[in-house]
Amino acid sequence: MKLHRMWDNYPQVATELEQVNGLIEQSVRMRNKEVEFVLKDMLDSGGKMVRPAYTLLFSTFGADHNPKRAQALAASIEVLHTATLIHDDIIDDASQRRGKVSLQSRYGKSAAVYAGDYLFTVSFRLSAQYANTVNQFEVNTRGMERILMGELDQMNLYYKQDMTIRQYLTQISGKTAQLFALACYTGALEGGQSEKESRNAYYIGSHIGMAFQLLDDILDYTQSAEDFGKPVLEDVRQGIYTAPLIFAMRKNRSKFEPLLSKQDQMTDEDIRTIKQWVLEFEGVKEARQIAQKYTEKAIKRIKKLPDTPEKKVIEKLTLQLLQRNL
Amino acid sequence: MKLHRMWDNYPQVATELEQVNGLIEQSVRMRNKEVEFVLKDMLDSGGKMVRPAYTLLFSTFGADHNPKRAQALAASIEVLHTATLIHDDIIDDASQRRGKVSLQSRYGKSAAVYAGDYLFTVSFRLSAQYANTVNQFEVNTRGMERILMGELDQMNLYYKQDMTIRQYLTQISGKTAQLFALACYTGALEGGQSEKESRNAYYIGSHIGMAFQLLDDILDYTQSAEDFGKPVLEDVRQGIYTAPLIFAMRKNRSKFEPLLSKQDQMTDEDIRTIKQWVLEFEGVKEARQIAQKYTEKAIKRIKKLPDTPEKKVIEKLTLQLLQRNL
Repeated sequence: MKLHRMWDNYPQVATELEQVNGLIEQSVRMRNKEVEFVLKDMLDSGGKMVRPAYTLLFSTFGADHNPKRAQALAASIEVLHTATLIHDDIIDDASQRRGKVSLQSRYGKSAAVYAGDYLFTVSFRLSAQYANTVNQFEVNTRGMERILMGELDQMNLYYKQDMTIRQYLTQISGKTAQLFALACYTGALEGGQSEKESRNAYYIGSHIGMAFQLLDDILDYTQSAEDFGKPVLEDVRQGIYTAPLIFAMRKNRSKFEPLLSKQDQMTDEDIRTIKQWVLEFEGVKEARQIAQKYTEKAIKRIKKLPDTPEKKVIEKLTLQLLQRNL
Repeated sequence: MKLHRMWDNYPQVATELEQVNGLIEQSVRMRNKEVEFVLKDMLDSGGKMVRPAYTLLFSTFGADHNPKRAQALAASIEVLHTATLIHDDIIDDASQRRGKVSLQSRYGKSAAVYAGDYLFTVSFRLSAQYANTVNQFEVNTRGMERILMGELDQMNLYYKQDMTIRQYLTQISGKTAQLFALACYTGALEGGQSEKESRNAYYIGSHIGMAFQLLDDILDYTQSAEDFGKPVLEDVRQGIYTAPLIFAMRKNRSKFEPLLSKQDQMTDEDIRTIKQWVLEFEGVKEARQIAQKYTEKAIKRIKKLPDTPEKKVIEKLTLQLLQRNL
């Protein structure tokens, strides 16, 4: 299993992530070898493992840190993330994931539903086996519930042309920020930090997640399909409107409406036009500004963490992650 | 929430099942009220609650029985069951469930995927909150994994005309028997029974589950759509071949092949023909004989349980369940 090259600069984290990967590898064992192969291939292929890295890093601050346990919880977070990706792909009818054919387009929706379910149970098992207490485990299930409720809420917003920025932010808060928040919070609790300190980790993760998702949504409007590893702006056709578009529409709603109303009948030419208008009406620029605000909020809290080598890694990693080439 | 009338004869179980229902009701709370409504409606409508009843009954034998905890674990089992039903409906493209429009045909596959996922987390939370130990909780996640692996294995068997009875039995053992086994085992563990006694409960549940599924599959060939609350023999069209058909095909494979090879292009007339041949070639009769064997195995083990009022209820309930009007 090959780690993403971004970890080359963090040898300590890299070593631990390799162990997390090994643990995941051991935990995913199915009678259906074909599906096991695809799952492992997916777990293998280019996931950056940013979320489990945060779990590992935040676990180091407390007095009760146990590296093995932290790695298991990190593995649980990564597996949970992968499970949600697989189920998202079913819903989005996505043909690709991480630059490869998605599990559902290769084996059908059935395999994808069950494979995602299976990974949920693996994630639960990993966190149950190693949680300090049943209590901590409960934290994880509540976090998961919030993530799934975020996904369900999102569905009410499909094809909603008058969607507000506030609705968008609530949506990504459930969808992405919760998982980052859970990753950091779980780590802090594992190490034995106080509830107050762990809440701080939770907010850091949440801010990082918000910025991360905003940047991801911005990339849809600034990158080509080849760079991005998935079809560009497929989301718009499916009625998922993100920050850049929402901001641009605030400037000139009536211009966008005829094209958006074509829904999944939009042509590639329509999509190119929308993309161009979003840039013209400064949708990307404004979305970047909010992303920047969340990044600053995260960094401000990170600066107050105890002065350890891991704090420096968290700061550097976060800046690297959130200042991707825009 | 109205209990199935089958519980009228078991007032003690009925009272406890009402409490289990209340707990489920409290546990399912979503921001998306529309989906919450449908989930509750589904949890409400005509599920027999047989699995949680076994959890409650088996929890009474040990020295450490705690009714509240047993009810929570029973709720966890019922919610898990409902989650798997919702995901099964996505895969089967089922338009009905329990005589009502299925969640997926009402709100689309997306809502169904996430709603099922959400119920998984509710189930985990319920069992985590009340498990005696993290250990017992681990048992539950392993049980769930086996159930999901059973589902995944099943997919390899679609449209498999040379499917053997052994393959069929392995399949239903993963799909149905595991959940009954888990229900009984979890109950026994909750009450504080020994590992050996709990294994006995596990086998009883497993045998009951096998017979239960066989009888369900037999009903497909013996009942009309109205009686059954779902379209008859839809499964065959979708390539799911069950015991009655497999036994009948052993008698005259070549007769069935042309019709089955039409796969989802089968007409209603084709289905009626298959149904008739299955009866003619004694597929139903032979399937009933195996169901009977599993019932006997279950009853034999039940007879060795400690002599308590609950033992009598288990015996009576099992016979009632497994001697449905065939």
